[in-house]
Amino acid sequence: MIIVGELINTSREGIEPAVKDRDTEFIQDLAKKQEEAGADYIDVNCGTLIDEEQEALEWLVNTVQEVVDVPLCIDTPDPKAMDRALAAHDGKALVNSITAEEERFNETLEIIQKHDAQVVALVMDDGGMPDGIEDRTRVGKKLIEDLTDAGMDMDDIYVDPIIQPIGTDQEVGQHILEAIDEITSEYEDVHITCGLSNISHGLPQRKLLNRTFVTLAMAKGMDSAIIDPLDPKIMALITTANTLLGNDKHCSNYIQAVQNGELDV
Amino acid sequence: MIIVGELINTSREGIEPAVKDRDTEFIQDLAKKQEEAGADYIDVNCGTLIDEEQEALEWLVNTVQEVVDVPLCIDTPDPKAMDRALAAHDGKALVNSITAEEERFNETLEIIQKHDAQVVALVMDDGGMPDGIEDRTRVGKKLIEDLTDAGMDMDDIYVDPIIQPIGTDQEVGQHILEAIDEITSEYEDVHITCGLSNISHGLPQRKLLNRTFVTLAMAKGMDSAIIDPLDPKIMALITTANTLLGNDKHCSNYIQAVQNGELDV
Repeated sequence: MIIVGELINTSREGIEPAVKDRDTEFIQDLAKKQEEAGADYIDVNCGTLIDEEQEALEWLVNTVQEVVDVPLCIDTPDPKAMDRALAAHDGKALVNSITAEEERFNETLEIIQKHDAQVVALVMDDGGMPDGIEDRTRVGKKLIEDLTDAGMDMDDIYVDPIIQPIGTDQEVGQHILEAIDEITSEYEDVHITCGLSNISHGLPQRKLLNRTFVTLAMAKGMDSAIIDPLDPKIMALITTANTLLGNDKHCSNYIQAVQNGELDV
Repeated sequence: MIIVGELINTSREGIEPAVKDRDTEFIQDLAKKQEEAGADYIDVNCGTLIDEEQEALEWLVNTVQEVVDVPLCIDTPDPKAMDRALAAHDGKALVNSITAEEERFNETLEIIQKHDAQVVALVMDDGGMPDGIEDRTRVGKKLIEDLTDAGMDMDDIYVDPIIQPIGTDQEVGQHILEAIDEITSEYEDVHITCGLSNISHGLPQRKLLNRTFVTLAMAKGMDSAIIDPLDPKIMALITTANTLLGNDKHCSNYIQAVQNGELDV
């Protein structure tokens, strides 16, 4: 399971002031903690700082890469901020995100290929947000085909089925899960990821909904998630599900996690 | 999700002496607690009392049915004990279990049909325990076909894919999940159930493995489980998964469970 640590995002409480003040120690500490907790990528997002997103994102890339060995997930829809952040990034970054909207697709693809980055592909096109299973699978497959046709490796593509709140549409969980199933059945080597927390928007006990949904989605073939790696309960379920899905030889990761006290949840 | 409460089983600690002593209060209390916690069936199993299983099982049926409104799951491979317990049972019971072993199949089917019971169908045949996906789906489908050919309703059949320990075979979880997927894809109306706890045999933190596996299996179409309904953590995951799978209109069960404090886990 590929974990993208989501905590360095100015829409989260306490992060915007730290980025505005260029609080190096705070940001580096949050990055290191996520890496130690098992994050494979550290997401950086300062989308709320509209006037200074480009400068702030570049600062975040430099600041975080000073202290972690894992690559970053450059989380912005803005091509200029993306280009500048990728130029500052050492090694192969993940970009969040491209979509199938024609103009955004072409512009983003050029930047991704210029910097040899990986990409999160959101299943939306010029028709807007997806509605139902068919929309998600159709746009997901189109993105995979168009990105690989342009020369990208399947291993560099992370399809995001776009999570919407179960509280406003009780069918949406099943739609997302079926779309994941259909896409991974046809494209075995593509990655699937998502930002989970929207599933629980507007409902109580959100973390319980989020960690249950990640487990359901793993059963359908999702192999990555954008989550809080400092939440021991979601990490315990992911570790355990990974073992039960056959991805843990001799259950050794599971047993090690028990011995480390990581599964006392 | 159809919950079979597993606690009245003489192989569990403290139950054998209570059944031997015909401790009515103890057994009735355990039955009522499981019903209150959401069990749809109360399992009764006294298989460790080899010499007096028939008498003890009949006593359990009468004792439990005095105090609960839900039907029982008559859990014995012995035809005589099964027949006698079903004769004592009011209403439609679930029998655990039939297999595709020829002699056992014919003998058990006759008893089930005589008493108009439902049945758990274990995916094993005269070749022994299943090994891999193909064995499980082949025997599962044969049982469904043979039982419906004999006149049983699909709604009265609960296929059990037979859980084996992940600790001795890291592939077995995936085999079970794929078999559930294949069987439910072909037979939409059949039920799938299982006794979960064998998945975690020999490993630490067994309850975490059990509740994670039930969630993964629900994503694949399992709609019943034989579990401890007094374990708040497994019940919380099941309630939440049920909501996320689209089986909870307006998320009202979920919200009610939050209000009842059932999801503070």
